[in-house]
Amino acid sequence: MGPDNPMRPVFDRADREQAAELFEAVRRISAARVGVTRPSFSEVETAAMNVIAEAAASAGLATRHDAAANLVIEMPGQPAGKAAYWMGSHLDSVPEGGNYDGLAGVVAGLLCLAKARRLGIALRRPLAVLGLRGEESAWFGKPYLGSYALFGKLSPHDLERRQRDTGRPLAEYMEKAGADVRRIAAGEPLVDAQSIAGWLELHIEQGPIMVAREAPVGVVTGIRGNLRHLSAVCRGAAGHSGAVPRWLRKDAVFALAELLMRLDENWQALNSRGVDLVVTSGIVGTDPRQHSISRIPGEVSFSLEIRSQSLETLEAFYQLVLVECAGIEKARGVKFDFGERVLSEPALIDREWAARLRRICGALQYPYIDIPSGAGHDAATFANHGIPAGMIFIRNDNGSHNPDEKMDLDDFMMGTEVLYQAVTSEPEAPR
Amino acid sequence: MGPDNPMRPVFDRADREQAAELFEAVRRISAARVGVTRPSFSEVETAAMNVIAEAAASAGLATRHDAAANLVIEMPGQPAGKAAYWMGSHLDSVPEGGNYDGLAGVVAGLLCLAKARRLGIALRRPLAVLGLRGEESAWFGKPYLGSYALFGKLSPHDLERRQRDTGRPLAEYMEKAGADVRRIAAGEPLVDAQSIAGWLELHIEQGPIMVAREAPVGVVTGIRGNLRHLSAVCRGAAGHSGAVPRWLRKDAVFALAELLMRLDENWQALNSRGVDLVVTSGIVGTDPRQHSISRIPGEVSFSLEIRSQSLETLEAFYQLVLVECAGIEKARGVKFDFGERVLSEPALIDREWAARLRRICGALQYPYIDIPSGAGHDAATFANHGIPAGMIFIRNDNGSHNPDEKMDLDDFMMGTEVLYQAVTSEPEAPR
Repeated sequence: MGPDNPMRPVFDRADREQAAELFEAVRRISAARVGVTRPSFSEVETAAMNVIAEAAASAGLATRHDAAANLVIEMPGQPAGKAAYWMGSHLDSVPEGGNYDGLAGVVAGLLCLAKARRLGIALRRPLAVLGLRGEESAWFGKPYLGSYALFGKLSPHDLERRQRDTGRPLAEYMEKAGADVRRIAAGEPLVDAQSIAGWLELHIEQGPIMVAREAPVGVVTGIRGNLRHLSAVCRGAAGHSGAVPRWLRKDAVFALAELLMRLDENWQALNSRGVDLVVTSGIVGTDPRQHSISRIPGEVSFSLEIRSQSLETLEAFYQLVLVECAGIEKARGVKFDFGERVLSEPALIDREWAARLRRICGALQYPYIDIPSGAGHDAATFANHGIPAGMIFIRNDNGSHNPDEKMDLDDFMMGTEVLYQAVTSEPEAPR
Repeated sequence: MGPDNPMRPVFDRADREQAAELFEAVRRISAARVGVTRPSFSEVETAAMNVIAEAAASAGLATRHDAAANLVIEMPGQPAGKAAYWMGSHLDSVPEGGNYDGLAGVVAGLLCLAKARRLGIALRRPLAVLGLRGEESAWFGKPYLGSYALFGKLSPHDLERRQRDTGRPLAEYMEKAGADVRRIAAGEPLVDAQSIAGWLELHIEQGPIMVAREAPVGVVTGIRGNLRHLSAVCRGAAGHSGAVPRWLRKDAVFALAELLMRLDENWQALNSRGVDLVVTSGIVGTDPRQHSISRIPGEVSFSLEIRSQSLETLEAFYQLVLVECAGIEKARGVKFDFGERVLSEPALIDREWAARLRRICGALQYPYIDIPSGAGHDAATFANHGIPAGMIFIRNDNGSHNPDEKMDLDDFMMGTEVLYQAVTSEPEAPR
């Protein structure tokens, strides 16, 4: 394409309305106290999936479930024998999270497939949309469950992970959702990576950068990995808060506070040197069964998460955490027990996809920016299995993983337009 | 008394066994997952009270309940028209606490009264034992409920305090326990302070000092007061942990960690200058409904408690807390909301009581130390109403407010001996 052949948007007001209706329908069936709650591999997730599947069927598309119980939407009459472009994202949400995180990418894919079918355009490659399950680590302590299962990457240990509220194992939830747990437990790939020519995921930005830079569309350049301890514990000794002098205390909460402040100082120093890093302790709590204002806390549990685009930074900072803990243990008479360590490796975005997305934004005259993804995405799973992966970010105010996320539907339609053009208009495949 | 007239212990092995049986009987009816749980103004507290009342009745003592539903044990045939010596302590416990905290003082008083009756000694003053309710602040967020009620010191607001587990108001619990809530709500004193010549409370030490100093008995010299916020909150902004860079975060947990570390520094500095002070944040927690390892915590609740023997120190340190908070709010974009402030004033121990207890320890040749009480006690309520109050501490390993408290019964019997002698042997009353 060029100035002689400017790219013309294919979506119209009716498509925008359909998107709004789909978002609202899924929101309604998953509304929580505030925001939405769609637990991984839950009945609510399945209900959301069914809303999407029905819309797909109404648009004349074929739907099925893969062996990990993810939703697959395909166009009837695909070109045979060629590797496909896959689009999509996930259907679950964090507890009391926002409606668009994940869902936007599934709806966008569905709109693209429906449009391609309605327009009857000739496809060079088969297209499919995935509505993945279990991307959010909030429920089973590990992210990307749906896409990991696809590639045979869940261990038997993972299948025993407990659901945060019920304590029931992941295997049970997967079974109930219709997944083939035996194959998954055996580590069998449920899909042939060679049959996928590329993965494209549209997702809301989960940070504030695109709002600040006034860009409705973002071309993702890389995906941060993370190193996590979901349930660490600091143990000291309980005691009467009035009767134990400072020098005899083993206060677990003060010890944790010191750890966080030491990490904070190091983090600040690294940031000022341009190192990509964020540190979060999102879950902190003393044991409610032992709560008393007059009790020195003998124990506090907490989560710890380190994210970076560099695996080297992750591991180096992790070593620093251990060193700081050793110092605090000595000084304060406590013990840190970190429990299981979960690593999600950083992932590279395919350069050709990124270049193609930039060209399309330019041709459509959409303002866009290049942006690294601070959050992890299923796209990382595909990328780390050798499938060229690209991501389109949509501007979104108030972040995500909270009920206040705010995506403008006009921005969403621009991103969907880019997605459509990326999988239909360009002759060369990136692979 | 003097060398010619050495003091002889009155208690024997049978008394020691009775004490052991009473402790065990109460422990049994209040056993929890670990330790004991006797909630304030609960049926378990009442059951503990009934065990004591039955033992008192078996010993030929008179029992009744006062208008605050506390247990009162009296000796029949008391000398008329004279102010009485009151002994006792409380029957409730913290959740999953130890069996002796409070209960020891009630059992000791009962043993003294039973012994005095059995020996048929002439009393110069009436004697009574109180089994007080609701001393532990763990249940309704405020301590000394039973003794406060006695002196008309509970406000209508206090009566609306919610029980930590059920959320039901204190008034309802009091009513159910048999208290005259109308009189209590009216702030009517339920007892004539002039009729009480002195209050003596035996209690386990709740800190490690007597174990370290190898003293079975302690003569208490003063009682720390405290300043508390039971349910403070630090509010920032939630966000995706991977997508929000450091400079845009409003992380409530890091903000709280910084507050605790700033207080820690100041506390350390004050301690090194000899200022009496302890600082505790025994209850800390992010909201489990919003827990996700990938969510920047937008909110964390916590308790804050400052204790000192000096009211001046309490207020000065409190001002410092507010100043530190203001700094952190500015730097980290958070807001601290401390909620209700509860002050329990420090109390003075009666000098004559303390001197008498020392003389008795000397005459009995018991090793003892002078010791300030770091924890608050009902004795403070009596002292702050002009009643000469004394306290006897019993050596106790592993502190209190935890299931591991460990009082030696031999130490307990020594303290009980001191209590008996204090209320029977000396001719001069401290008032």
